[in-house]
Amino acid sequence: MEGEVVSAAIDETHDPARGSWVPTANGHPEFPVQNLPLGVFSPRGGQPRGGVAIGDRILDLPAALAAGLFSGEAERAAKAAAGATLNPLMALGRNPRVALRRRLSTLLAADGAERAKVEKLAPTLLHETASCAVHLPAAVGSYTDFFAGIHHAYNAGVRAGRQPPLTPNYKYVPVAYHSRASSVVPSGTPVRRPNGQRKLPDQDAPDFGPCRKLDFELELGIWIGPGNALGSSIPIARAAEHVVGMCMLNDWSARDVQRWEMQPLGPFLAKNFSTTVSPWLVTVEALAPFRRPQRARPADDPKPLDYLWDDTDQREGAFDVRIEALIETEAMRRKGLPPHRLASSNLDHLYWTVAQLVTHHTCGGCNLQPGDLFGSGTISAPDQSGWGSFAELSDDGNATIELPSGESRTFLEDGDEIVLRARAVRDGFVSIGFGDCRGRIA
Amino acid sequence: MEGEVVSAAIDETHDPARGSWVPTANGHPEFPVQNLPLGVFSPRGGQPRGGVAIGDRILDLPAALAAGLFSGEAERAAKAAAGATLNPLMALGRNPRVALRRRLSTLLAADGAERAKVEKLAPTLLHETASCAVHLPAAVGSYTDFFAGIHHAYNAGVRAGRQPPLTPNYKYVPVAYHSRASSVVPSGTPVRRPNGQRKLPDQDAPDFGPCRKLDFELELGIWIGPGNALGSSIPIARAAEHVVGMCMLNDWSARDVQRWEMQPLGPFLAKNFSTTVSPWLVTVEALAPFRRPQRARPADDPKPLDYLWDDTDQREGAFDVRIEALIETEAMRRKGLPPHRLASSNLDHLYWTVAQLVTHHTCGGCNLQPGDLFGSGTISAPDQSGWGSFAELSDDGNATIELPSGESRTFLEDGDEIVLRARAVRDGFVSIGFGDCRGRIA
Repeated sequence: MEGEVVSAAIDETHDPARGSWVPTANGHPEFPVQNLPLGVFSPRGGQPRGGVAIGDRILDLPAALAAGLFSGEAERAAKAAAGATLNPLMALGRNPRVALRRRLSTLLAADGAERAKVEKLAPTLLHETASCAVHLPAAVGSYTDFFAGIHHAYNAGVRAGRQPPLTPNYKYVPVAYHSRASSVVPSGTPVRRPNGQRKLPDQDAPDFGPCRKLDFELELGIWIGPGNALGSSIPIARAAEHVVGMCMLNDWSARDVQRWEMQPLGPFLAKNFSTTVSPWLVTVEALAPFRRPQRARPADDPKPLDYLWDDTDQREGAFDVRIEALIETEAMRRKGLPPHRLASSNLDHLYWTVAQLVTHHTCGGCNLQPGDLFGSGTISAPDQSGWGSFAELSDDGNATIELPSGESRTFLEDGDEIVLRARAVRDGFVSIGFGDCRGRIA
Repeated sequence: MEGEVVSAAIDETHDPARGSWVPTANGHPEFPVQNLPLGVFSPRGGQPRGGVAIGDRILDLPAALAAGLFSGEAERAAKAAAGATLNPLMALGRNPRVALRRRLSTLLAADGAERAKVEKLAPTLLHETASCAVHLPAAVGSYTDFFAGIHHAYNAGVRAGRQPPLTPNYKYVPVAYHSRASSVVPSGTPVRRPNGQRKLPDQDAPDFGPCRKLDFELELGIWIGPGNALGSSIPIARAAEHVVGMCMLNDWSARDVQRWEMQPLGPFLAKNFSTTVSPWLVTVEALAPFRRPQRARPADDPKPLDYLWDDTDQREGAFDVRIEALIETEAMRRKGLPPHRLASSNLDHLYWTVAQLVTHHTCGGCNLQPGDLFGSGTISAPDQSGWGSFAELSDDGNATIELPSGESRTFLEDGDEIVLRARAVRDGFVSIGFGDCRGRIA
């Protein structure tokens, strides 16, 4: 790691001509052989272990290790990714991870030199994803939620009656708060409507009961490693070395509780009852073709302070990845209607790059650790079709969203399921996806 | 644990007539045989392990286990407390912990039936504290900082220009924010002055550099276990079962950074560069004689909502423990002057009981886990002699504090050391202390 300069690298693992001998990988909307996201899963009746999503299958890393398919740096990374959490892999840094990616790409390629041997092992190497349980990819050390979606921050300021809507620090400080690590759950975990204190404007005193304004938030999740020692900081030019990969993240929010509790120290119970993440760690290597120049900061906005500025980061620090939030109600399921898209946005609406988030987090000496998780903040698009929360879509409950089932919503009702998705698309490359981030209100 | 009702119990381990065969325990201001706090330490050249402070010695739990001094529930607890963290002990709940306390009290008592046998083992059982390193007592899962010191909250509101100074939610909501677990350090760890962004009122734009308003905060730390499952909550009548013990906690704060960064989501980097805790876990059992009725809420304040109200908790939920913050500067050390007391307060100034903090934290379904840490918030007394931070003492730098060395302070300077102490005193009982919570600005 020391001395190594990491920059976005497109290599043979991104070759659009490469197919896989796993038939469902070819043309798979999320997990072609160009993606190779890592995760933790349990086959039916089995223990949690590390795996790689390929088409509608999961490659079993302990089984592949046992078959002797890895050596050198790739073996080191495969061992670190084979256990019940990916924290050891996150601690390793980039080089072993890249070696593992290259080796996995070769092993799974249709034209790989060892195809015949590997394909023969398929019954022990591959599991049907549909028959497996997926878990959190890491034991989350600490979870920090940023506020880097500027259109969401603007909309929140309008609702709060701030004029101007953005706080004076917004274009200088990557605003964030620490959130709760223990309640981060993998996609598919039911979400219980929280109780809480809230006080409506017309009430003399608060009351306590089930949340009346239960909301979702469309966010990017960022998995961190290897991190820094307490008292040190990570300069912006080295920040990319500490970002392992991405997921989608739903920062469920109790808006009525939030409104009442958050002065003067910020949101607390309104955000800590559940946070859902998609279970696959889509590596920064897989995302290399989808990097682009940072564009969410208008040219006439103040230039960030020096510690947050790096020319390379400005050139390739953003990601062009389409994201969306969909809803499926009980009635929609009954009627066989497909999920309805509530919002469609793009990761490149983030005002701050991921490197800027990392550097800011450590600029005072706070130590990041392998398995730390960042949320980006809600990534709304400028226009209403891309607003990533009900608070924005319904103007805090003042407008209703009509659904194809004939129902309407201002906030989430019991039985509603929210699905977040991400898809990276670029001409000349094979599209990849993040896998569903899904949660149903119990 | 299930079905058990825990209430403050004074038993033979608190007998003021009981002395110890460890000579320095008798009359020790902090660690007499009535205290028996648990911690993690390393003897010179040895590995971290669990121990018990007794006078100026530490009892080595693995050595005591190897000598066969425990059986039954006490052995179960001793094993859980013998490793490199106390998290396994925190997970066990009250009964094994009480059994361990009773057994330790008997083993160390001057009139214990096995005194001769145990005293003969002293060379292997006891280490000189001065020759040992002390560590964090637990791997901190999550760290939550409350705002339950009402006089501090009031003073902060005055400085922020709020009228009235307390936010409208203060007397209903135990206000809190999630803080950073990774940067919690044990007493004695140097504290590096953080860099950060700040903007003075007369600046057009923020700049970045070393904190100019580095502050301490005089807080109680609360160690949590066993905790609750995600989606469940801990009713107020059961909350005490999930509090293992206490420590002192210094929530180092960068006030200039905090002022600029904290809108709209609360403090972040201003609080996450270091949090110092005293290394000994003073159990709730040791503190039983020092419980008292909750008194910090004036009778004409609004009654808390039902979920936060329990008659037993009101009768015995507060702790009468004197706390103080002292400063020692470079010049004071050079001149051989003793540390100077900046603030003298008492745990009973907390507006909310510890049980109310636990119940509120879980009322929306957030899961607590063994090894979670709460900070109480700064526990200032009503008058200036008990203000527990420089922000209060110097009115955010507008007044100077004169020191016996002839120096003055508005905030912390490099080389300053802050020491927090706690002492529980009650007629008819032996006083106990928490051990120093000490940190020097590097």
